[in-house]
Amino acid sequence: MPKIVDHDTRREEIAEALWRVVRRDGIRAASVRTIAAEAGWSAGAVRYYFPDQDGLLSFAMDLVSRRVTDRVSAIEPKGSVETIVLRYLDEVLPLDAERRAEFDVWLAFMAQARAESGAGALQEHLGKVHNELRQLCESLLHSLADAGVLRDGLDLRREVELLHALLDGLALHAAIQPDRTTPTRLRQLMRRHLESLMAENP
Amino acid sequence: MPKIVDHDTRREEIAEALWRVVRRDGIRAASVRTIAAEAGWSAGAVRYYFPDQDGLLSFAMDLVSRRVTDRVSAIEPKGSVETIVLRYLDEVLPLDAERRAEFDVWLAFMAQARAESGAGALQEHLGKVHNELRQLCESLLHSLADAGVLRDGLDLRREVELLHALLDGLALHAAIQPDRTTPTRLRQLMRRHLESLMAENP
Repeated sequence: MPKIVDHDTRREEIAEALWRVVRRDGIRAASVRTIAAEAGWSAGAVRYYFPDQDGLLSFAMDLVSRRVTDRVSAIEPKGSVETIVLRYLDEVLPLDAERRAEFDVWLAFMAQARAESGAGALQEHLGKVHNELRQLCESLLHSLADAGVLRDGLDLRREVELLHALLDGLALHAAIQPDRTTPTRLRQLMRRHLESLMAENP
Repeated sequence: MPKIVDHDTRREEIAEALWRVVRRDGIRAASVRTIAAEAGWSAGAVRYYFPDQDGLLSFAMDLVSRRVTDRVSAIEPKGSVETIVLRYLDEVLPLDAERRAEFDVWLAFMAQARAESGAGALQEHLGKVHNELRQLCESLLHSLADAGVLRDGLDLRREVELLHALLDGLALHAAIQPDRTTPTRLRQLMRRHLESLMAENP
């Protein structure tokens, strides 16, 4: 009988092993070798999923995107529209160890993409991830606009870019100075920014 | 007679050679070897200034800080306070090839600092550079407050952090999607953010 491999299950297993390594030792400790050891597989079996370090980072980035998408999809739209929007933003800010590890994957992925010469595969992938977050910002601001809570005369396209830049900048600051840009501070700052866009808080 | 070396002049020469390499081939092409070749020195002479890659990045980061400080010091305070503040912000946004190269040095430096285990020398240096930009944001917002053009009831400490995060986030976006986050767009977004803090533009 031929050997049947369920690639979806194996992909899931390797993703879990990768994530355990990232959480425990950081994304920079993740290599074909360390992940194979963690999963109890041969290095050759792991290389099927990512042949090299670029492939590993792409795989890790996909895993992070999927984790964020899963959490965002699970949000129940209860409460005021502002509360709901803040709940979405919580899922993309590095508020706990899991989300900080996700941001570290993004940073390592970004640094590696910048090191590519010309327009490489990682850069294209980076653009895709970047667009996903912008689209989330877009849909959140449109929800606020549809609910009629935004102040008059805002240029929404501009506000999408500002919110998106603020999210990435705050995440960066939490990575650089975690003692200063704490989870509590991140949420306060995000709330203050949203309030500045809303009609009732001039 | 003992050999007399003017370290300030040599430091200046090595900084210029480093910057030519960075501008031409990117920060990732910068190594003791490529910079020695550019300066017409031996690798040993270059190693006096940075013994390894971490030292090179620290040296490059210092050079960038000095470039920014020099430009900022040269700004003549002419025009409205808002115009002057925008002129300062121009000097820290990646609006041209020189300032984009500076941002690339910062990114590479940041990625390298994150790769350090524990609280290393690069991380400490990164914190220092980070604080310098925050202090600039602080002084700009206080100038606007002193001129009485800010809207009432703003929490200035919070606004300093938001402006600082926005600057870093926008610079990041210009690096990720230069065709979208163009110099013109960067300046528009920064102006829009300042206007949102000012009394005459509710």
